[in-house]
Amino acid sequence: MTTANPLLELEEFLHQRIPLTRAMGLRAVESSDRGLVVAAPVALNRNHLGTAFGGSINAVATVAGYGLLWLALRNEAADMVVRDSAIRYIRPIHETIRAVCARPGEDEWRAFKTAFGARGKARISLRVRIEEADRVAAEFEGTFVALRRAAD
Amino acid sequence: MTTANPLLELEEFLHQRIPLTRAMGLRAVESSDRGLVVAAPVALNRNHLGTAFGGSINAVATVAGYGLLWLALRNEAADMVVRDSAIRYIRPIHETIRAVCARPGEDEWRAFKTAFGARGKARISLRVRIEEADRVAAEFEGTFVALRRAAD
Repeated sequence: MTTANPLLELEEFLHQRIPLTRAMGLRAVESSDRGLVVAAPVALNRNHLGTAFGGSINAVATVAGYGLLWLALRNEAADMVVRDSAIRYIRPIHETIRAVCARPGEDEWRAFKTAFGARGKARISLRVRIEEADRVAAEFEGTFVALRRAAD
Repeated sequence: MTTANPLLELEEFLHQRIPLTRAMGLRAVESSDRGLVVAAPVALNRNHLGTAFGGSINAVATVAGYGLLWLALRNEAADMVVRDSAIRYIRPIHETIRAVCARPGEDEWRAFKTAFGARGKARISLRVRIEEADRVAAEFEGTFVALRRAAD
């Protein structure tokens, strides 16, 4: 099934293997040269004020970074985890949490892939912009680590 | 019902007003002079490796900070939100995500309450330790803001 839609594959993987993403209604929306977009409705992620729960915003941003690496390494036997992250919440989100993980710069990306190829382990810093109606609602930055899976 | 168990009140508030906390199986476990403990089972918060999802760990930590303020200000007409946070994931969590928000130092706490009383707005930095079997699994620090609700 290598011809399947990679975005759909990612979404299915997330819903099956990280079940909270299903409860959050998380969708993989778009993948392009610019990066990966994932989204979740506030209706399933609301807080006491009827806007998006900070914990949900962070989770959607984390998945955006994770998903970008998952798509890049899906033909490798690799596991990815988040090592650390920081987030700044700028304004309330009312309808949809939309997180855009930017593709890293050419050099950074090459260094990451080279390190993974050579040592089976590599880390990379990813930036995610969370937005609504084209306005920034939160800014996230995280360090992710990819590790080659041991052969079974 | 002012004689009700505050921890139970907090848990009910969270489950009703932040529905994702119910999907996460979040419980308010203990409140003492040391701080507030909240927890959630990995079974409802697992990732692709069968350990706790980073997004869930962050959400539990965020709720620990939020809950500490909620308990402290529950007799005030106050809303709390998280402004920013940073987290470092140290080791995988296998059974239970347990987040301990430390009560701030005496001076910091007094400054926060004084500012809230005087201006109806105050911010405070809170530290949360996420642990399993008495070992630190993650460290979280967040800035929270309390705002007096406008009279209806």
